[in-house]
Amino acid sequence: MIDPRGQETLTGSAQSEVFQILRDGHPRTRSELATLTGLARSTVAARVDALLRAGLVRPVADAASTGGRPSRQFAFDGGGLGVLGVDVGATHVHIGLSDLRGEMLSDTATSLAVSEGPESVLGWVIDEGRRLLKERGNGAFLRAVGVGLPGPVEHTTGRPVDPPIMPGWDRFDVAGMLAEAFGVPVLVDNDVNVMALGERINHWPEVDDLLFVKVSTGIGAGVISSGRLQRGAQGIAGDIGHVYVPGRDDVQCRCGNAGCLEAIAAGPAIADVLRAEGSEVHTVQDVAAAVTQGDVAAVRAVRDAGRVLGQVLTSCVSLVNPAVIVLGGPIANAGDHLLAGAREVIYMRSTPLATGSLQIVRSRGTAMAAVSGATCMAIQHVLSVEGVEALLRDATT
Amino acid sequence: MIDPRGQETLTGSAQSEVFQILRDGHPRTRSELATLTGLARSTVAARVDALLRAGLVRPVADAASTGGRPSRQFAFDGGGLGVLGVDVGATHVHIGLSDLRGEMLSDTATSLAVSEGPESVLGWVIDEGRRLLKERGNGAFLRAVGVGLPGPVEHTTGRPVDPPIMPGWDRFDVAGMLAEAFGVPVLVDNDVNVMALGERINHWPEVDDLLFVKVSTGIGAGVISSGRLQRGAQGIAGDIGHVYVPGRDDVQCRCGNAGCLEAIAAGPAIADVLRAEGSEVHTVQDVAAAVTQGDVAAVRAVRDAGRVLGQVLTSCVSLVNPAVIVLGGPIANAGDHLLAGAREVIYMRSTPLATGSLQIVRSRGTAMAAVSGATCMAIQHVLSVEGVEALLRDATT
Repeated sequence: MIDPRGQETLTGSAQSEVFQILRDGHPRTRSELATLTGLARSTVAARVDALLRAGLVRPVADAASTGGRPSRQFAFDGGGLGVLGVDVGATHVHIGLSDLRGEMLSDTATSLAVSEGPESVLGWVIDEGRRLLKERGNGAFLRAVGVGLPGPVEHTTGRPVDPPIMPGWDRFDVAGMLAEAFGVPVLVDNDVNVMALGERINHWPEVDDLLFVKVSTGIGAGVISSGRLQRGAQGIAGDIGHVYVPGRDDVQCRCGNAGCLEAIAAGPAIADVLRAEGSEVHTVQDVAAAVTQGDVAAVRAVRDAGRVLGQVLTSCVSLVNPAVIVLGGPIANAGDHLLAGAREVIYMRSTPLATGSLQIVRSRGTAMAAVSGATCMAIQHVLSVEGVEALLRDATT
Repeated sequence: MIDPRGQETLTGSAQSEVFQILRDGHPRTRSELATLTGLARSTVAARVDALLRAGLVRPVADAASTGGRPSRQFAFDGGGLGVLGVDVGATHVHIGLSDLRGEMLSDTATSLAVSEGPESVLGWVIDEGRRLLKERGNGAFLRAVGVGLPGPVEHTTGRPVDPPIMPGWDRFDVAGMLAEAFGVPVLVDNDVNVMALGERINHWPEVDDLLFVKVSTGIGAGVISSGRLQRGAQGIAGDIGHVYVPGRDDVQCRCGNAGCLEAIAAGPAIADVLRAEGSEVHTVQDVAAAVTQGDVAAVRAVRDAGRVLGQVLTSCVSLVNPAVIVLGGPIANAGDHLLAGAREVIYMRSTPLATGSLQIVRSRGTAMAAVSGATCMAIQHVLSVEGVEALLRDATT
């Protein structure tokens, strides 16, 4: 017997069916909706009323009629409801308030070290989030919060798990604290997944298989396959920073193993190489600055790091066959040198079929990439079957 | 603006909605279906009639009634329609006729080298397929054909692409030839993807993230993430046979590169090692036989191959975070030695979070794995929204 769970889910979610049709923004009359769905007219009328009350749909200009009373049309309206996108970085926090169309209405940022701990960082998020919402002057506007954190996150519970640069955050209930403060669902993921979502939705909407790789203090990837962010069994898909690079056992990694990718090719490793050669380079930002200024040693070291990264990405290309690899983070953004090193090895070592139409590019995302990805994650939740059903329930009670 | 394609598809496929509800096999009355879908009663009645005509649904024992005329119940019936599953191996062909529940009704196999070419191999498939169908005595029974081939396949067109061990098959229209002979849709994929589907649906239905790895003449993987077989941008996801193993540039691969995984760890490479030590071992089957007989050199060589495989799989574990890795093919099936070598390296080199609940096991599939996977692929197509709509159209005209 074939287990039905082996099949793709195709359930006709009756409750949100009318909305999923209107979601493309194209206006339709009640009678058109009845034809499209096969739902009874009275059912369509009730659903449209509920969607109007929930603020997901608005009436638009009446349809031209062949005589008699003109028929009213309805379309998706994402302007009346919104989400907060939160980007917690190693040394900054950035939040933005957007409507459901993804239009950012206002945002604010501050310098705040993640090592200050969750109460301090999330306290700021709550205060500033409330301020942005107050400016909006509508308590019912907010429908979800999306958060990107600079470490591994158990997405299902919204808690960081053994995050190396986040003292005090291990297993802290980030989703719970924000959900209590804002009274809406909170989605939490690591910053790389969030940036992968933002990069894809903003710049590569037509691409279903994309790998986003961030090179900064560590190295991590976000894996999009078949148009979906893949989180894997424990939510740590894309965690390539500790892949073993053979022949480099001389390099000790903070994880306890030797020869890990990020111990060789991330920002601090590149800074170590340059300091050993006499440069005054300490942080990831120092490395990026040296490269931007054309420091030959820095350029060479980053290109070497790109080659090592390329070696690991070659396996990734074979396994998930992406159409696009996007390199992001401060080291990738400082010129084309990391990119050049990675391309060199990937094109040399992968099969012609895998690289024939593979694009390897630098991130087009700006400083806004993470906050925009967190926003996308929140909007996807609000407009999902589950999210729309919750909205309709709230509007009814 | 958020591009709607960035969101998961949630379209309420009105045409097949009634069927998707009935698909779980649980019997329901027309009136229950109207309540569940919100469809008008007349619409539900018409859809149920169409599904009855299409042979997808059957009436079952009448529901207990509180008085008056008892209400008839309907449920999914996969017994009246079927598919052919075809497994083309390097030296054998195996076909099976199954109903839509996945119950195999009859099958037949033969020794036939794939190098005989597509006309010869597919000619046998057509003759034997027709014979199995004739025994069934019903021309309208067959709804789709699923085929697994021992080489890379462009799944969208159903054509092999540069298959190394299939002379005469390059770009041959396999799907076209079989579709013309049988008059139904034909799905073609490589044997590893097909075996991954079969392994998952038959043995790990509750697991959404699974990696199936076949070690035989070559090495390939089937990647299941979020419950879906991932084919990637060019349909070659899982093609890990040519991943570079650093430090092994002494080993030349048939692909033109040196140090490829399958040039070191697949059956022929193991046979080479053993012959160099004086054993009379030539084929993959010879290697498997030597291991089964407890030949110490063979056991050691296979365990070494497992370690090299484990090295490459470590990157795969980091990238897609599977819950289960299944090793299949003749070398994996000859005792636990390949498995032991792979486990050793994966557990040593991966992060504790990735391996904490990772299972690495031998295939539970038998010689039937590929034909059963090809059957699953065909059934999934017939019961998809698209497939059900085609059935309903045929039943109406």
